[in-house]
Amino acid sequence: MKILIVGGVAGGATAATRLRRLSEENQIIIFERSGYVSFANCGLPYHIGGTISQRDKLLLQTPQSLKSRYNLDARVRSEVVSIDRVNKSIEVKNLETGAHYTETYDKLLLSPGADPIRPAFPGVQHPKILSLRNIEDMDRIIESTKQENDFVVVGGGFIGLEVAENLIEKGKNVTLVELSPQVMAPVDIEFASFLHEKARGKGLKILLQTGVERFNATGEGLEVTLSNAQTLQAGAVILAIGVRPENTLAKAAGLAVGVTGGIEVNRYLQTSDPDIYAVGDAIEVKQLVSEQPVLIPLAWPANRQGRLVADNLLYGNTHEYQGTLGSSILKFFELSVAATGLNEKMLKKLHIPYQSIIITKGHHAGYYPGAKDMVLKVLFDPKGAILGAQAVGEEGVDKRIDIIATAMHAGLKVQDLQEIEITYAPPFNSAKDLINIAGYAAENILNGTLKVINHHALWDYQKANDALLIDVRTKEEFSRGHIPGAINHNVDELRALLPTLDPSRKYIIYCQVGLRGYLANKILSNHGFDTVNLQGGYHLWNKLYPQNN
Amino acid sequence: MKILIVGGVAGGATAATRLRRLSEENQIIIFERSGYVSFANCGLPYHIGGTISQRDKLLLQTPQSLKSRYNLDARVRSEVVSIDRVNKSIEVKNLETGAHYTETYDKLLLSPGADPIRPAFPGVQHPKILSLRNIEDMDRIIESTKQENDFVVVGGGFIGLEVAENLIEKGKNVTLVELSPQVMAPVDIEFASFLHEKARGKGLKILLQTGVERFNATGEGLEVTLSNAQTLQAGAVILAIGVRPENTLAKAAGLAVGVTGGIEVNRYLQTSDPDIYAVGDAIEVKQLVSEQPVLIPLAWPANRQGRLVADNLLYGNTHEYQGTLGSSILKFFELSVAATGLNEKMLKKLHIPYQSIIITKGHHAGYYPGAKDMVLKVLFDPKGAILGAQAVGEEGVDKRIDIIATAMHAGLKVQDLQEIEITYAPPFNSAKDLINIAGYAAENILNGTLKVINHHALWDYQKANDALLIDVRTKEEFSRGHIPGAINHNVDELRALLPTLDPSRKYIIYCQVGLRGYLANKILSNHGFDTVNLQGGYHLWNKLYPQNN
Repeated sequence: MKILIVGGVAGGATAATRLRRLSEENQIIIFERSGYVSFANCGLPYHIGGTISQRDKLLLQTPQSLKSRYNLDARVRSEVVSIDRVNKSIEVKNLETGAHYTETYDKLLLSPGADPIRPAFPGVQHPKILSLRNIEDMDRIIESTKQENDFVVVGGGFIGLEVAENLIEKGKNVTLVELSPQVMAPVDIEFASFLHEKARGKGLKILLQTGVERFNATGEGLEVTLSNAQTLQAGAVILAIGVRPENTLAKAAGLAVGVTGGIEVNRYLQTSDPDIYAVGDAIEVKQLVSEQPVLIPLAWPANRQGRLVADNLLYGNTHEYQGTLGSSILKFFELSVAATGLNEKMLKKLHIPYQSIIITKGHHAGYYPGAKDMVLKVLFDPKGAILGAQAVGEEGVDKRIDIIATAMHAGLKVQDLQEIEITYAPPFNSAKDLINIAGYAAENILNGTLKVINHHALWDYQKANDALLIDVRTKEEFSRGHIPGAINHNVDELRALLPTLDPSRKYIIYCQVGLRGYLANKILSNHGFDTVNLQGGYHLWNKLYPQNN
Repeated sequence: MKILIVGGVAGGATAATRLRRLSEENQIIIFERSGYVSFANCGLPYHIGGTISQRDKLLLQTPQSLKSRYNLDARVRSEVVSIDRVNKSIEVKNLETGAHYTETYDKLLLSPGADPIRPAFPGVQHPKILSLRNIEDMDRIIESTKQENDFVVVGGGFIGLEVAENLIEKGKNVTLVELSPQVMAPVDIEFASFLHEKARGKGLKILLQTGVERFNATGEGLEVTLSNAQTLQAGAVILAIGVRPENTLAKAAGLAVGVTGGIEVNRYLQTSDPDIYAVGDAIEVKQLVSEQPVLIPLAWPANRQGRLVADNLLYGNTHEYQGTLGSSILKFFELSVAATGLNEKMLKKLHIPYQSIIITKGHHAGYYPGAKDMVLKVLFDPKGAILGAQAVGEEGVDKRIDIIATAMHAGLKVQDLQEIEITYAPPFNSAKDLINIAGYAAENILNGTLKVINHHALWDYQKANDALLIDVRTKEEFSRGHIPGAINHNVDELRALLPTLDPSRKYIIYCQVGLRGYLANKILSNHGFDTVNLQGGYHLWNKLYPQNN
């Protein structure tokens, strides 16, 4: 059999090597438009900053190594320009020579990836407006860092944040412009707030709710005019607004394209032409929680799809791709922020009813040195089905979200998190890990023994219920800063104060992170008071509203 | 209601605080024999070594803090000496005054823990033979480190290894004596081998398959006579052979005790007396995989049991304890080693049929700096049910075992590990994480497309099949060391060499860690050769048999 693969990174390269491992017999040709196959695209920002010091570390395979080890024919600088589905052939342009030629196929795999979006801003064609998708793009950005000092990054997603961090590490003056009220769309704003704070501490200027109007060439660089009429001077601009699925070839060949613009595939990753399969950033997938068609241009799904599509290409449709949770993680200076499933913004948009718990705790036992606080939010439906989770902190963030992604894959309920028997020793976690506590707290919420509110609902709830806001931390903590309007009753003195509290009022309780608040809630509610606990406590409130005190 | 709790650490303390959160009304009294409640017993070794520098960090609660925050009556230095089940009362000895008194109960919770085993070695009563269970024990060991330089640790379990590590960190001369062929019983010998090697590198002498015969007092300390007639001079000895459940009180009260010596409880953690419950190291639990009764004296189960037994004490039997996987982890200098479920030793003993896969890979993307190799073994039955897992490495060991523990809790099959959508970015893992690769490899094994053998079967297999041992690494790697009898054919040249190989022979393939060996296996088997892959490759072989080259 002769199998052609369009695109030699992630999905395409994975499929090709798997195809070879499955059989020595088939002819397999990979066509890659760029000059490199199987490069580490997720590593590109880190070579810009110098964390990955050797460029060749990013080149995981070469056409030569794919030949010697896998007997693959990998052709770089080779652009597939059209598909002739009737004659089962493709037309290839050799970008070195300009020559065109035809290759026939028995099966064709499309793994063309996604392209950085370049909106039609006036002046966007300026040569110092760069983006980052492949090795050549990276080389151009590195070249610009040798000449320029002032950078504007447009877009606060993964690539924008990673590039901005790495430019800061290089000592550059960087401003990041983001249209929405937060960076890092996969998490909700209280989690993004940690990134906003970290950026401030690192000298990275982030302008939120700010768009780009136009670019103007100046003598030495560019002037960026923003939606608020402010202008920024830049030696170079990195456009990292997002990507769009590379569907040109598929569309031209008459293959079905989904509502998202991604190539449509069935659960076997087969396009509307049964001899053509597709994987990676270019395809539309099912979001596993919402069951909606989405684009999830991440490396894990591309690799997973590449592995299983090989079996389907060779043996017929034996392996199903179940869909994508969208697990993702970002390192941002010392912080990690991660998410899986849906976030609150998505749940609201989709009108999916949900509840949430927010847990703040050290990533390992507090008495063992080096414990770093982490904040974990788990979202669940009224029956306990886990809808998504987010976490932020310096250590152990990946572990908790991966555990929850595993639980979601298995269909565990949020209450089941109580029973996840983590490996415990003081250097690694607590005997009651955040995961377990999330399960306990969710059980309390679901059985009605604990009422909670989140920060975004605080003022509305207070106003609607004329509720009293009680800070149950110590006097010293309270005096260092508190939520406006709160009165201070130390949890350890609360029982003695009960006779002074009005049982006809409603109370909102908070502490530093939530634990003492929970205890105070239990003391009050067990004495018949109507109370709610403010999740995340003063710590999270202070991240969201740092200007308020 | 009046609830008495015997034992104020882990399970007992957790139950007490939960009881108070559930209701303000009940009288709750905790009796603790030692001078401290709710101390961090898992942290004790680290104060000996100085990692946890402040002793009071280990005291998580005091009787005073339990009173002010939880309205609990915690009585330290108070030994419960008998239970009168007919009159529902206990007799308490105040260890300060020697006075005895009686307290009645409506419900009684036993959380007495486990005692260090002190076998009847001649001379074992010597005052410099110490063990480590509580704060007082720790203080004694620290006192001994001020006077003594030479230590013998008897027993290579968690406590023995942690104490030995911390004594080495203190600059002491330490010999650890272990009766079995390996330390760290929860893992199999190839994983323990990493600890053996690390100990050698740190100057910690480990004597395996060596027992203690007797202790003799010398002028300045002790002489330890070993089973091999060798003698060791020691200033002090730490006995860390293991623990036995503290069942004296329960037995004397006529409560049922299981085959393991642990207090028998039903799934609600209720003893044979319906008004008496028990939790923690003292109880016999069901091992979740084997469904056998076992003792699992670890902090996670104790905390979990303490939390849920509170509900059962107050509301009747509402919460079931499902059993224990036995997830555990040890930090040992730079290494972490962890396990969950059953290991090969247990599976053999229980005659449970199993297969295994061993994966070696960096804990994050290899091209991102700081990647540390990790070895992961997953054990599964012929239908794919996960029976257990083990891992060793410097980073990320806890994450992988916790993911597998979650998968086991949820009943996922080993093939399902392919689909665990981990959060991926280069600083955290690979787009194909070890977990995913374990799933892929297990699928290959279960569907018969990959045959593997483990090190312990290597020579038997080779002899029985007159098999050729082929090292598919580079000439340079081969020349630096290889398995005796192997011939060298670089995987990248294997296809060209095929005509020179005898198709009637059987072949055992290995490389450094297993990946190239797997590719070589596929090349050969796809050409009709009968091959097996040696799991873990030369890297693991070299850990097990470091003296052989």
